Formats: sequence, C-alpha cells, structure tokens
Amino acid sequence: MHTSRLGKPRVIITTGDPSGIGPEVTRKALASHKVKRLADFLVIGDAKTSVRMRKSPAECGKLSIGYLDKALAIIAKGEADCLVTAPINKANVRAAGFSDFEGHTEYLAEATLTKDYAMMFVGKRMKITLVTRHVALKDVPEKLTADKISKTICLTHRYLSNQFHLKNPRIAVAGLNPHAGEGGIFGREEIDVISPAIKKASGVCGKVFGPIPPDVVFGEALQGKFDAVIAMYHDQGLIPFKLLYFKDGVNMTIGLPFVRTSPDHGTAFDIAGKGIADPSSMIEAIILACRLAHHS
Amino acid sequence: MHTSRLGKPRVIITTGDPSGIGPEVTRKALASHKVKRLADFLVIGDAKTSVRMRKSPAECGKLSIGYLDKALAIIAKGEADCLVTAPINKANVRAAGFSDFEGHTEYLAEATLTKDYAMMFVGKRMKITLVTRHVALKDVPEKLTADKISKTICLTHRYLSNQFHLKNPRIAVAGLNPHAGEGGIFGREEIDVISPAIKKASGVCGKVFGPIPPDVVFGEALQGKFDAVIAMYHDQGLIPFKLLYFKDGVNMTIGLPFVRTSPDHGTAFDIAGKGIADPSSMIEAIILACRLAHHS
Repeated sequence: MHTSRLGKPRVIITTGDPSGIGPEVTRKALASHKVKRLADFLVIGDAKTSVRMRKSPAECGKLSIGYLDKALAIIAKGEADCLVTAPINKANVRAAGFSDFEGHTEYLAEATLTKDYAMMFVGKRMKITLVTRHVALKDVPEKLTADKISKTICLTHRYLSNQFHLKNPRIAVAGLNPHAGEGGIFGREEIDVISPAIKKASGVCGKVFGPIPPDVVFGEALQGKFDAVIAMYHDQGLIPFKLLYFKDGVNMTIGLPFVRTSPDHGTAFDIAGKGIADPSSMIEAIILACRLAHHS
Repeated sequence: MHTSRLGKPRVIITTGDPSGIGPEVTRKALASHKVKRLADFLVIGDAKTSVRMRKSPAECGKLSIGYLDKALAIIAKGEADCLVTAPINKANVRAAGFSDFEGHTEYLAEATLTKDYAMMFVGKRMKITLVTRHVALKDVPEKLTADKISKTICLTHRYLSNQFHLKNPRIAVAGLNPHAGEGGIFGREEIDVISPAIKKASGVCGKVFGPIPPDVVFGEALQGKFDAVIAMYHDQGLIPFKLLYFKDGVNMTIGLPFVRTSPDHGTAFDIAGKGIADPSSMIEAIILACRLAHHS
C-alpha cells in the first residue's frame, strides 16, 4: 500500500450502522477544518442517520457489513490507502446472519487472511495494545500464552517503529494479577507466562519492560516512561484509556496489510438522529489514519 | 468512639515499617501547616527511618506489628478517636512469624472482631470500594458472591451517609466482564451474581446503579454522576484510582469500630532514608481521618 509523499492519502470511511451515530460523526468530521483538506475521501454508507424504526436490526447489520466489503474490495485493488470505520452494532450484524461476528477487528483480519493482529488504542500521551479482547474475565488467564504475548509485543514494536517512526521504542508489559503477583503470592502467570514472553521478545522487538503492576504501569506511561503498554485483557487497557481519552481516543487494528482506525465509541443508539453526537474521536481517527498512511 | 465537636480529635499515627518511608512521611506531614493544628497527635513508632542494614526484615516486621497492637490497645481504652497507618511490608511481617499476614486491613478487622469490612479508596472526586482485594485474577470470579457484593454496597452506603454526610448517596456497581458481559455474551456474572446483589441492596442501601461497563463507570463517576463506585477486583478499582490520585489518594478501611486511614503507597524501600519521600498522601490521610473522626 503506497501513496506518494507529496500526494494526499486516499482514505475510505465506512459510516457503520445506519441507525447509529456513524453517519453523523462522519459528516461532522469531514466538515471540520482539521480534516477537510487532509486527504481524498471516499465515504461508503449513509449520508445521514436512518430513523431506527424504518430499518430492521438485520437490515442495519447487513448494510454495515456491505459497506465494509465494498471498502475491502477497493483497498484490494490498490485504489485506497487506508480505512476509517464508524461504529457498527454486533447484535445487528449477528441478526443479519453473521452469527459468530465478533467485531470490525476480527472481520477485517479474516477478510485479509491476517493471522497476527491486535487492537491498539491511541491517545495523545498513551498507546495501549491488548493481548486478549472480548473475553469473559474468567477465561482470560487460560487464553494468555507466552506466544500470544510476545507476538503482541513484536507487532506493537513494529508499528511504533515503522508507522509511528519512533526510534528504540520502550514497551511496558502489564502483569495480570494485583501487584503483578507479588512474587507468586497472588497468581503465577507473571512467572510462568508473561516473563518468558518478555524474555523472548526483548532485544529482537525493542526494549521491553515488565511485568509491571497493573495499577502502576499506566501512570508511568503517562509520565512518558514508555511509548506503549501491553495490556493483558480488555478492561485492564480500556479502563485507563477511556478515563484519559473519553472524547478523542482512537482505536486501530495493527497487523493488517493497510492502516485501519476507528473512533473509540459505539453506535450510541440513545442519541442517534438527534444531531448531538460529538465527532472528536472520529476526527482524531481520520487524522491518525492520514498521518500513518503517509508512512506505510 | 466519640469526640466533642469542639475539641480536637485524638489521632494515633503508626509509623509502619522502620526501614520504609513511613517515619519520614509522618514527620513531614506533622510539620505541614495543613495538619499541625488539626488534632492531638500520638505517634507510635520511629522518629526517623532506620538504615535497612541495621535491622533485619524480621525485626522490622515485628516492630511494625508492635506499633499496631499498641495503637489498638489505646483505642480500645477509648483514649483515641482514629488511626492513621504508615505503610508496612508484608514480607517483613511474615518473616517475623506472622506467616499468613495479609495486610493492615485484615489484621485490624481480625483484632476488632469485625466481620464485614472493606477497603475504600478516597480521592478528591472519586471514592472506590473493593469487593475482593489481594486475589489472583483467575480466582476473582469464584470469590464474587451476591452476598459479598450487596454487603459491600451497604457498607459503602453507610459510610457515605454517616461519615461523609451525603444525603441519598448514588452508588455505581461495576460489571466484571468487558462491556458488563454484553447480555451474557462475554460472561454471565453480571446476570447471575451482580444484578441480584444490586437488587437486594437497592432501596435499603440507597440508590444503586449497574452493573455498568467497567471502562465506562469510572469516567461517569469522575463527571459527578455517582458518589462511589463498587469495584469487583483490585486492579479494576486501583488502575483508575492510582491514575487519578497517584500522589494524594487515601486508603481507608470501612466497617471497623473506628476510623482508619492510610496513605495509598508502600514502604518504597528504594527511596527510604534519602529524605525525598512525598508526604502528600500521608497529609491527605491525616486530614481525612480528622474530618471523619468529628463525625463518628
């Protein structure tokens, strides 16, 4: 995927679920002076929010997937550089017949035959990558393997180096347990799984620190001690991220053959169609996609 | 435990592990103009940090417990109103023969025959109570019972009402799983355990909201939507708390027959004896104890 350093990146935006706030935040973001001239935009989807009663959940889900497939086809032809996706609704997509649909991330990975990928959250002063995503808390420990953790570290390192152009990025790895297990007293995953993963990734994939107590590592990252934090599970990463970047955080998939970003909020059906949705996160998602497209 | 509304509260401070920063932050806090005249203070412990090599870990642990026992005896005689504890070191206390020592919280509860108690963290704009404390992440789901959760809600309600003098406190309960389980897709604890606990506590123990997605509830509390958040496990509460109140957060035990507060940091052996420890959290712990002693 290439674009001239002088030419504008070609950005596809899918507007997501037509009954959510996707169409509205897309329209508002594209009208913003921060975004307008950044790229050549191709919007796939709805120009405005459909009143929910006019379309069934299954119709909304089917359209959501249709927009994505269209975007993927255009990217595959080399006619676009990156993808920004407005939110979709899992239940609606499932109602449309995609019964095991997990989310944008997994769908895009599967469509592009990508095996190693991860969700990264990008805020002004913190980047967080998740090792596990939408997993019940009780299933997290067994899903954590040294292989998965070291791959997530290395993917993050690759993105920090190649896309964000950081030299010698410093990556912190959170523990799983309180106080990172305190020497095995509160859980052994730090000793048995996380430390071996760090050892394996260190050097080949940059400077890697940890396991660091989960209630310490994010504060240290915020102070500038690390360029990214590897979080073991969804809320470990998302609790601090959303607290800090509630309005303008960006979600991205790393590992895909193209840049994909997304605002860090859902369809917000409760306010859809009211004209009051805040486009800040969508604006940041577009800006980040444009910035990274120039480097990919 | 009573003190005249006009008289000063009588506050005991234990200086904690003699090789940690406890003696230093105590001395600095008591010299601070914010604290000096707030109460009649009785300091139990060391005036200054002992160089670590002069005392063995077991000696330090034994002294730490000795200070606590002395404080408990004075409080039992009605000669003090509240207790502020500087940090101790679990490993040192265990080395002194208290092989299953868990922490201040559990020790004080046992000594006072308190069955229902909890750790609450108090910051300027957020209070968080934990349902489980120092538990390996994999053991958290089985340790969560509806009974334990509803008791924690009710204890929190009692403290908000009686100690903090809030009328109709609003208590938010976090879910356990990502998106609070999203209707059972990512875990059933919200349906099977947390919701029944909320139902049981609602009304009798104030206005109770939830289960709320863990990555949403702390942001909402910060915006003023709730007076306290009930967190299911250590890092769920401590990650946001330490991110927000790294320097001046206060830890307290609720449910004891007296007010007990503590700075929200450890013994910090790495900087002990250097004179550079920050007393902010100790100062806030003393101020909070004095404020609550007047109301108890």
